[in-house]
Amino acid sequence: MAGERPTVHRKAKDFRWEGVAELPYKDDGRALFRSITRQVLFADPELHGELRYFEVAPGGFSTLERHVHMHAVLILRGRGHCLVGNAVKAIDTRDLVTVPAMTWHQFRATRGEPLGFLCMVNATRDKPQLPSAEDVAGLEADPAIAAFLRNMPE
Amino acid sequence: MAGERPTVHRKAKDFRWEGVAELPYKDDGRALFRSITRQVLFADPELHGELRYFEVAPGGFSTLERHVHMHAVLILRGRGHCLVGNAVKAIDTRDLVTVPAMTWHQFRATRGEPLGFLCMVNATRDKPQLPSAEDVAGLEADPAIAAFLRNMPE
Repeated sequence: MAGERPTVHRKAKDFRWEGVAELPYKDDGRALFRSITRQVLFADPELHGELRYFEVAPGGFSTLERHVHMHAVLILRGRGHCLVGNAVKAIDTRDLVTVPAMTWHQFRATRGEPLGFLCMVNATRDKPQLPSAEDVAGLEADPAIAAFLRNMPE
Repeated sequence: MAGERPTVHRKAKDFRWEGVAELPYKDDGRALFRSITRQVLFADPELHGELRYFEVAPGGFSTLERHVHMHAVLILRGRGHCLVGNAVKAIDTRDLVTVPAMTWHQFRATRGEPLGFLCMVNATRDKPQLPSAEDVAGLEADPAIAAFLRNMPE
C-alpha cells in the first residue's frame, strides 16, 4: 500500500530536529556573517525545492549577498530586521518575506532573542554574490540602510 | 540596486497572513474531509516549489489520498496524528514528515486544538487520487489504521 520509499518522521526538539545536522552557515570564507546556523529540513531528488532553517543568535546576522535565485522566507521564531533591496523591514514571527532575483539582502536578529527562519529555494540555483566596496558604499548612502548595516536599525 | 520585481512582506496575524486568501481546502466535491482551510504562502513563476499552509480545526481531517508528487510537511501549530502508508504517527509542533510518492496519507487534528502544517510541493504536480472502497477496506484491515480512520488513534 505504501510507495517504495520510506516515510521520514523527524521529531522536533525546540528548533532542532532528530537526524538533521546543524551545519556551518557558509563554506565561503570571504563572506561576512555572525552567529548563524543552517539546517536542511527537506532536500530530496524528487523535490524541486529545498527547505532550510537558519537561526541567527541575538546580535547575529546573515551574509549581505544577492543571487539570481529567489528566496521565500517564513519567520519561525523571534524578531529582527531584514534589508531587501533598498528597504529595511521589521520582521516578526510567521511573517513572510520574498527576496527577488539579484536583490541585496541580509537578516539580523533583535538583540535579546534569536531569529529563526525557514527559507524555500529552488533545488538548482546559482551561487550567492558578495558586494564590492562600491556596492556597500552605495547601500550606505541611505541612512536607514547604513543604520541597519551598523546593526542599529531605526 | 534592487531587482526589477518587488519584495513582498506579508505580516502574520496569528496563523493568517495579510493579502493571503483563506481558500476552500479542495475543489473536488467527491473528496471526504472536515474543517480544513488552505492558504498559499508562496507560489511564484520563479519558484519550482510551492509552500502552502493547511489548518485542520479540532476534530477535523484532511482527505485520505495519494499522488505521484511528494509532500514535505512541517507542523506549524498544535498536535495530531497522521497516516502515511501503513504507519500512524503522533505529530507535534515543528515535527517534519515526508509523504513519498503514491502513498496513502491523511492528517487529523487532536480533539482540543487546531493542527496547522506547512506543506512544500513541486509547482508542477499530478492530481490526488482518492481511495476505492477496496483500498479503504485494505487499510482498515490494520486495527491501528482502522482506529485512526474512525478518528480514534490509539
